Amino acid sequence: MDRQQRLQRWERAAEPYLFVASLLFLTSYAVRVLVPDLSPGWQAFWEIVTFASWGLFVVEYLFRLLLSDDRRRFVRTRWLDLIVTALPLLRPLRIVDLHERMQHRRDHPRLALETRVMAYAGLTALLLGFAAALAVYHDERTAPYTTIRTFGDAVWWAASTLTTTGYGDATPVTTRGRVVGVGLMFVGVALVGAVVGSFSSWLVRRFRQEGEA
Amino acid sequence: MDRQQRLQRWERAAEPYLFVASLLFLTSYAVRVLVPDLSPGWQAFWEIVTFASWGLFVVEYLFRLLLSDDRRRFVRTRWLDLIVTALPLLRPLRIVDLHERMQHRRDHPRLALETRVMAYAGLTALLLGFAAALAVYHDERTAPYTTIRTFGDAVWWAASTLTTTGYGDATPVTTRGRVVGVGLMFVGVALVGAVVGSFSSWLVRRFRQEGEA
Amino acid sequence: MDRQQRLQRWERAAEPYLFVASLLFLTSYAVRVLVPDLSPGWQAFWEIVTFASWGLFVVEYLFRLLLSDDRRRFVRTRWLDLIVTALPLLRPLRIVDLHERMQHRRDHPRLALETRVMAYAGLTALLLGFAAALAVYHDERTAPYTTIRTFGDAVWWAASTLTTTGYGDATPVTTRGRVVGVGLMFVGVALVGAVVGSFSSWLVRRFRQEGEA
Amino acid sequence: MDRQQRLQRWERAAEPYLFVASLLFLTSYAVRVLVPDLSPGWQAFWEIVTFASWGLFVVEYLFRLLLSDDRRRFVRTRWLDLIVTALPLLRPLRIVDLHERMQHRRDHPRLALETRVMAYAGLTALLLGFAAALAVYHDERTAPYTTIRTFGDAVWWAASTLTTTGYGDATPVTTRGRVVGVGLMFVGVALVGAVVGSFSSWLVRRFRQEGEA
Repeated sequence: MDRQQRLQRWERAAEPYLFVASLLFLTSYAVRVLVPDLSPGWQAFWEIVTFASWGLFVVEYLFRLLLSDDRRRFVRTRWLDLIVTALPLLRPLRIVDLHERMQHRRDHPRLALETRVMAYAGLTALLLGFAAALAVYHDERTAPYTTIRTFGDAVWWAASTLTTTGYGDATPVTTRGRVVGVGLMFVGVALVGAVVGSFSSWLVRRFRQEGEA
Repeated sequence: MDRQQRLQRWERAAEPYLFVASLLFLTSYAVRVLVPDLSPGWQAFWEIVTFASWGLFVVEYLFRLLLSDDRRRFVRTRWLDLIVTALPLLRPLRIVDLHERMQHRRDHPRLALETRVMAYAGLTALLLGFAAALAVYHDERTAPYTTIRTFGDAVWWAASTLTTTGYGDATPVTTRGRVVGVGLMFVGVALVGAVVGSFSSWLVRRFRQEGEA
Repeated sequence: MDRQQRLQRWERAAEPYLFVASLLFLTSYAVRVLVPDLSPGWQAFWEIVTFASWGLFVVEYLFRLLLSDDRRRFVRTRWLDLIVTALPLLRPLRIVDLHERMQHRRDHPRLALETRVMAYAGLTALLLGFAAALAVYHDERTAPYTTIRTFGDAVWWAASTLTTTGYGDATPVTTRGRVVGVGLMFVGVALVGAVVGSFSSWLVRRFRQEGEA
Repeated sequence: MDRQQRLQRWERAAEPYLFVASLLFLTSYAVRVLVPDLSPGWQAFWEIVTFASWGLFVVEYLFRLLLSDDRRRFVRTRWLDLIVTALPLLRPLRIVDLHERMQHRRDHPRLALETRVMAYAGLTALLLGFAAALAVYHDERTAPYTTIRTFGDAVWWAASTLTTTGYGDATPVTTRGRVVGVGLMFVGVALVGAVVGSFSSWLVRRFRQEGEA
């Protein structure tokens, strides 16, 4: 049990640093994609930031794996950690834990259940949409017959994908862009569905309260 | 407590006037967008109506801010008021309060919960869709490579966006048009989701009652 | 009370005939749209069937209006009857009552609540989709720049609209076609949402039962 | 009752074999569609596998029909079995029973209700999407004016259909492809709706538990 406790204490302590590292990862990735004509010095700087933060994720994951009592169980029960370590652009999916623990620590008055679900699912969807727009823009802008030429096109595509509108005026044509797109569709439809469901039940609750008042 | 009560009394008294002002705002905006070759006199008239009603929203918001006990709390808890004051085309989002209070005053028999949610969310979605169609038509009709040439195209685009159908035969190409589009997608998916959910539970309830009868 | 009872007895007796008439209306409309090169005799025959069934709906509605105690209340509470009388292609929306009463009469074992909602909403959606495909095909096939050239295109469009997929490879371009399209989008999104919700809760219930067994 | 028991014992015993046969069917169909320039020997081999597994489904269905007490009731209550026997590409719809019985046998700790619904509906949707992509690719790749030229296009189309995104950049143009598409739309919208609903309620439950902890 000692080891389990040490693991939990570690996770609680490491999370704010990982959160900062994930912001650095996303920022450096965004800068490298959106500002392609960086000077060689800045290029190197942002590349180092990208890989350093990624390295941090990998090291931290391996360290926790070492700390754990039962390693196969660790890998199986924390599969989401493995995924977001391998693909750091998916890291927004882990925000919930940080956010929850932060709230516990500060003893804030808790938000209503629906508001918390909406905030978590909505924020995750937005961050994943932003990451997907970056990745797709990176792959598509120079592809032949591309319809995603500017980052604005990529954001427009990501928004129409997340909401399942799917206009089709800007869509990825490369294989990698489409793989990202399929991922965004499935994750997006689930997260946005959760936001809509929570909004719906929040609205119904508000109307019920006003009806009783 | 005295100030709080004065604020509430004020809000109850001001709402019908604000509602009329928001109709005037939408009407004048619609006229200016849809009838581009107005005579200079009418043009000036409708511009004055637009800005006068907007000015009224701003003045009323500042007045309430002054009346409130705790101004920072006022801004934080009434963030929707701030948004609809800055962007009056989003004012339909505030209809719910008026509608609710009207019903209280007249002592009407209350509608069923689902019907009220459907009516509020559906009406809000329709008004926002109309406002978005106006704004997009205004920006897009003269843009190069536009696919939205008539107001009918804009309405068709707004309907296919609100229901997340998203044909893509008419879509905004300008940045401002796309910003409006992204807003409509996210607000629309939430409001239409609430309408569908309420319709669904209304249908289930009706079938259950008929089953018991 | 006497009049109210006579009205109800009348409605119960008239419904099977109205149902047959609505099938005749839909059939004759379909034949006239899908077989454009009918011989003049058949053309006249199916036109008569169309207008005779429509006339029956109008006469029956007016007759019930006469029978009712309070005519304004009749119009207000039975607004759906007025709509399906004016636009007989929407008549599928009235199926529920017939279906319910038929089941009562025959003392059949009742279906589960979710199955009934799915059957009603699904069947209504399919019939409305068929009616919309007919109406859109009728208007679009000869329009300039049309993308709906065959009835297959129209059915494909209707299916992609009902499920809010909205590919956009076949979409109406005429005003009348688009009005039908907007109606199908909003009615479709609500009905299909009800089917999906009921299917979802049926699936959950089935899994729960198997879990307990 | 003896016959009914024999039928049930048979079904329990036959299921693993049918599951293997359905995997063989899907594999052989996939190989024949995706590797069109097979040597005549392999071509014959995979054709035999396809038809042998299909034959097995038919024989097994007829055998169970013979075993049953009341054959008309068997056909009516097991309509899904009849459909998946006639169209073996829809066989994924039957997975649920196998999966459930497997879990019973092994006395595994049961997964949460939402997880089971998500796993079943999600897996079924993925398998049907794969089968539909195969069928559509088979029909479309050589059609005139096709937009589905590679299997990647077909998968991209299937994903955008299942999530009701519907970009429309790759859509079937042949009648058979569109029939498959309509089926995927309606089945997909229901299954993905069930996944989204279960994910939503799982998320709400998780947030509620963390709120109480």
